Amino acid sequence: MHVMIIGAAGMLGRKLASRLVARGEVAGRPIDLLTLADVIEPSQCGPGIRTLTADVSSLGDAAELVAGRPDVIFHLAAIVSGEAEADFEKGYRINLDGTRHLLEAIRSAGAQGPYCPRLVFSSSLAVFGAPFPEEIPDEFFATPSTSYGTQKAIGELLLADYSRRGFIDGIAIRLPTICIRPGKPNKAASGFFSSILREPLVGEEAVLPVPESVRHWFASPRAAVGFLEHAAGIDLSGLGARRSLTMPGVSATVGEEIEALRRFGGERAVRLIRRQPDETIARIVLGWPQRFDPKAALALGFRAEPDFDAIVRVHIEDELAAATGPA
Amino acid sequence: MHVMIIGAAGMLGRKLASRLVARGEVAGRPIDLLTLADVIEPSQCGPGIRTLTADVSSLGDAAELVAGRPDVIFHLAAIVSGEAEADFEKGYRINLDGTRHLLEAIRSAGAQGPYCPRLVFSSSLAVFGAPFPEEIPDEFFATPSTSYGTQKAIGELLLADYSRRGFIDGIAIRLPTICIRPGKPNKAASGFFSSILREPLVGEEAVLPVPESVRHWFASPRAAVGFLEHAAGIDLSGLGARRSLTMPGVSATVGEEIEALRRFGGERAVRLIRRQPDETIARIVLGWPQRFDPKAALALGFRAEPDFDAIVRVHIEDELAAATGPA
Repeated sequence: MHVMIIGAAGMLGRKLASRLVARGEVAGRPIDLLTLADVIEPSQCGPGIRTLTADVSSLGDAAELVAGRPDVIFHLAAIVSGEAEADFEKGYRINLDGTRHLLEAIRSAGAQGPYCPRLVFSSSLAVFGAPFPEEIPDEFFATPSTSYGTQKAIGELLLADYSRRGFIDGIAIRLPTICIRPGKPNKAASGFFSSILREPLVGEEAVLPVPESVRHWFASPRAAVGFLEHAAGIDLSGLGARRSLTMPGVSATVGEEIEALRRFGGERAVRLIRRQPDETIARIVLGWPQRFDPKAALALGFRAEPDFDAIVRVHIEDELAAATGPA
Repeated sequence: MHVMIIGAAGMLGRKLASRLVARGEVAGRPIDLLTLADVIEPSQCGPGIRTLTADVSSLGDAAELVAGRPDVIFHLAAIVSGEAEADFEKGYRINLDGTRHLLEAIRSAGAQGPYCPRLVFSSSLAVFGAPFPEEIPDEFFATPSTSYGTQKAIGELLLADYSRRGFIDGIAIRLPTICIRPGKPNKAASGFFSSILREPLVGEEAVLPVPESVRHWFASPRAAVGFLEHAAGIDLSGLGARRSLTMPGVSATVGEEIEALRRFGGERAVRLIRRQPDETIARIVLGWPQRFDPKAALALGFRAEPDFDAIVRVHIEDELAAATGPA
């Protein structure tokens, strides 16, 4: 089977590629060829891996991506929320036109001869906008409060229609906020959710800009890769037009995050969190969802961590232990 | 004030134009210029009326439409559900690209100098897909079961984002099924809802392809024009990102339609309905919504008919009395 990851150079793309290489199969079938595509050349290599430098927002590149007729396509390519907000045209070009070009390239390939790949699209909680009920049901409407969220919501609608018409067999999965995100602190408004754990766990200071009562919806990078992998293999024929699923996650407050940090890093780690209220960030975060009731995804077998401790444990196992080597 | 109707040659566009001409004002301000635009030249004319032949799915035409900087734009142009389903590319070109080109042309005009028109977009119940709760709340999600519904749902998302960014002051109104639709019977799956009243009221036979228990959501053409007119004038600043509103309507069964027909046309009219079950139509109609709880629209002052008798009365007053002249 031929598998392609578009957006393979990103954090999730790289982790997904490593997982697929390690397992050698997806959807119960062996992987003969893994194509890693991104606008910058993906760094992973090895037998059975092909890298491709392509920009899905270019019509020609989209056709080139699909030319090899991958059986499974993970479409993770996007510019992030902050950039899509800062550069209106770029956001629509990459996040909307890019997705549409990919879908059109697949439809076009299907007109040449039978072709209907499984397409797994990484969507986002950003399709939702406040005010929210305490627990958000699967049937809650999408009223994004950012251009990024708008572009993801449109991608979901296109994916559902192209699936209904038989051009693809698509599923959109709305990922929880990834925590603990590995790497350096970034300027994302959500960055502190990860940094108040990631930095103290290695003895560094981190800034907390919001009150401890702030609640949000989380999953580990490992769980997110698991969602993508699972989405590639399951039977979607029962979903009809409802092909966008909110993924399960852990609803936790910042205070609960800190309690988990205390259990793993002790009081010394907790003392490294510096409280520095930022009203702008606090206001942005207040507009974010706190808790979902992801019945449809659970019924299809998607699983997140059971609690926040498990999320911290994943980080220690996958990032810290891996960095220092086996004990 | 300069007002433009795009899609002015259609049934609703013509009725809206007549209403605006008769009133001479909209949103509490006098109309100095009324531009009627469509792909075929609109037939209405008179002082203060300009007609424009333009195809919004052409980038150049979209710029031309906006060149006169109308203060209020009614965007009614679309190809209908059946055609968008039969011709995939045409549906996306007109219903999606057309709307996007119009929005981009407005954004572009705004970059030349301050410009933020009120944009009233006619959306549709087709953004919703079965299964439904008994009464559909404003927060219910959009999972269209047609390409037309997908294109309308995407238009709603774009309109909300362009409004949030300050490029337009937009509102999308989801019109109920228009009943009694004037004119000749057509091949739309929903055609019988109107024809089982319209034809018998003038002594002609009509075909009923579904059981009398079928329930749906209706408003008269006059109410629909009223929604559009009202949408042009109200303050939308409190809506935030939630700029797509399901319009109020009358929830009625086919049996209730027939009872109303009996009250206006007597037993003789009812006997002109010929029952001829059509499983294809029955199956399509079963996927349609039956009843809404349009709280947001009601709170903003949108009003439909109170009952089905009022819908029949509108037809008699606006179509039959008008056709035969005053009694």
